[in-house]
Amino acid sequence: MIYLDNNATTRPLPEVIAAMQHALECGWGNPSSKHPKGQDAKTLLAAARAEISAFIGAQPVEVVFTSGATESNHHVLHGALMRPDMPRRIILSAVEHAGFLKSALRLRQDGVEVVLLDVDTEGRVKIESLRAALEHDAALVSVMAANNETGVLQPVAEICALVHSRGIPMHVDATQIAGKLPFSFAGCGADLLSLSAHKLHGPKGIGALLIRKGLTWPVMFSGQQERGRRGGTENLPGIAGFAAAARHAMATLHDEAERQTRLREAFEARLRAIPACVIHGAGAARLPNTISLRIDGLSADRLLGTLEREGICASSGAACSSGGSNPSHVLLAMGIEASQALGAIRISLGSDTDAEQLSRLADLLQTMSESLRSAASVG
Amino acid sequence: MIYLDNNATTRPLPEVIAAMQHALECGWGNPSSKHPKGQDAKTLLAAARAEISAFIGAQPVEVVFTSGATESNHHVLHGALMRPDMPRRIILSAVEHAGFLKSALRLRQDGVEVVLLDVDTEGRVKIESLRAALEHDAALVSVMAANNETGVLQPVAEICALVHSRGIPMHVDATQIAGKLPFSFAGCGADLLSLSAHKLHGPKGIGALLIRKGLTWPVMFSGQQERGRRGGTENLPGIAGFAAAARHAMATLHDEAERQTRLREAFEARLRAIPACVIHGAGAARLPNTISLRIDGLSADRLLGTLEREGICASSGAACSSGGSNPSHVLLAMGIEASQALGAIRISLGSDTDAEQLSRLADLLQTMSESLRSAASVG
Repeated sequence: MIYLDNNATTRPLPEVIAAMQHALECGWGNPSSKHPKGQDAKTLLAAARAEISAFIGAQPVEVVFTSGATESNHHVLHGALMRPDMPRRIILSAVEHAGFLKSALRLRQDGVEVVLLDVDTEGRVKIESLRAALEHDAALVSVMAANNETGVLQPVAEICALVHSRGIPMHVDATQIAGKLPFSFAGCGADLLSLSAHKLHGPKGIGALLIRKGLTWPVMFSGQQERGRRGGTENLPGIAGFAAAARHAMATLHDEAERQTRLREAFEARLRAIPACVIHGAGAARLPNTISLRIDGLSADRLLGTLEREGICASSGAACSSGGSNPSHVLLAMGIEASQALGAIRISLGSDTDAEQLSRLADLLQTMSESLRSAASVG
Repeated sequence: MIYLDNNATTRPLPEVIAAMQHALECGWGNPSSKHPKGQDAKTLLAAARAEISAFIGAQPVEVVFTSGATESNHHVLHGALMRPDMPRRIILSAVEHAGFLKSALRLRQDGVEVVLLDVDTEGRVKIESLRAALEHDAALVSVMAANNETGVLQPVAEICALVHSRGIPMHVDATQIAGKLPFSFAGCGADLLSLSAHKLHGPKGIGALLIRKGLTWPVMFSGQQERGRRGGTENLPGIAGFAAAARHAMATLHDEAERQTRLREAFEARLRAIPACVIHGAGAARLPNTISLRIDGLSADRLLGTLEREGICASSGAACSSGGSNPSHVLLAMGIEASQALGAIRISLGSDTDAEQLSRLADLLQTMSESLRSAASVG
């Protein structure tokens, strides 16, 4: 099997599994318990928090563990509207994660004004769209650092600076960038940041919401855990696994980002020679590991079906919306026709990916494109 | 170490750790992905759901996986008020879990009427208090099946029948009863039920919200997972561990409940011979594993300090509020004086507990009580 769907989820590293096993066997106390069994767990929790905060350029006190980026995003969204004296108006990019966007848009039923920022044809938030949106006050601005479908990077620093100049809380969904490119909470200037461990070879079911020190954010689940910011017994095996993944990412990120960039560039050079093959967001800075492409005339279903028969796992976009027959909202926002967007497939590399795998994929795509052309010329 | 704090958390079983390791190594795909790696994970998810639903007497479709009972409880609470045309009035027992109660009471700031049901001196919800509360419509009634601090069982079937006769959604927090006494979602008559795996020798960070088939409940995290009822990539290692814990509980529950009841009764017979020792809720049906006690004249801190020096882990009440110097809201609701409530310690047995451990604990408590008396008579 060739697994090229690392933006959907990644294989947990052996050291992640070992760290979880250790937490399950030796650190299973409740960190809130005052007895030694609880205090052992609390020590483990503090060590994990320190490693994850070092990885993402945050202070340990800024890390609030959650069940993953979906919870973090929703915590940010609902919290923004719970803060006192905030306008019932929020601003998001049009290319945010589908579930998050859906939750935000549903708020319109409750009278919340939800402004979607336009993106250009490469998928980057238009700064003029943001400037226009910022002419009125808002309770929140939220933009993802890197898009899950196309890998396109957003001009986060520029966005954060503009939003801060208006005194509005700024949230960055860093789920896809973390572990793939150097990225720092302090450096990007966001007030709030979402992470999920399973996108960086950590376990599912654990993530974090970073809350800038000094910022008080409404609580979604009451309880004294996480300094009163997120109730519920801490998911210690998940947190220990997350820390192991963060440690690995810190050690390997630089080399791995370079390696994957080289792999992607070589692969894309092959793609550019394939007739009717289009790379989405090709003109933008992108993640090292992500390629969204289509071959006009071939549906995503047909492409993926052929790849699957050859043992290659890829996706038609976000896993969370796979199986749906609707075109990607990300590609539509980039101005791509619905009929063309329905042909999009996403290839996302991981630490297991090598040149041979991508070469095989490129061969297959080339064959499919050529078959299509010869069928067309016969027809 | 003698661990007698199983209501705070339990040691994960070896088969739980093995099931999680298997999921991490072999079932790490994203269950939403259409390719074989995703479908393997989806198969694992369905099998786990079937085991957990069989354990709790529910249909698989009624199980929504969450990050634990805290999330489940908050989902119920906030969902109740999001339903269309519902009165902004909710009814809870005065002895619910502290975090849940805090969230509910905070809703008063938003104009929600929050009615707390009285309990009797044994800690059982007064049915006349419920009847009075039900004279007006409500969006929700929520009562825990067994109290985390005292182990006292609530008359859940009677409460559910009364609440249903008024057409009000009924939620039962089954976090402490699940795995300790036979308990069925279908049998208890609740519409909604909360569970946490780590209370029954499963992992932390995973639990469930059961939603009765046919009942539409507002969504807290948008996404297509869990039939659109809880977004976010499923915590498959956690779910696999939860299923292994449920399987073990189903196989051993009957014998283990009997065994722990015998242990508890023998221990309590010893306690009754200790001067100034009081068992809270002694007159009520209780969980097999839970004893809340005090020795008048001795603070919980002093008792726990001595136990800790002897290698015994117990707690002053809920782990989530340990370290606080406030008396337990549960004991206060039972009419116990604050000064006496501050002496309460909780002993909670588990599958590792044996008679010798409890005998040693009883010896220690007796010695402490006798020292206190001789000091008093000398004074």
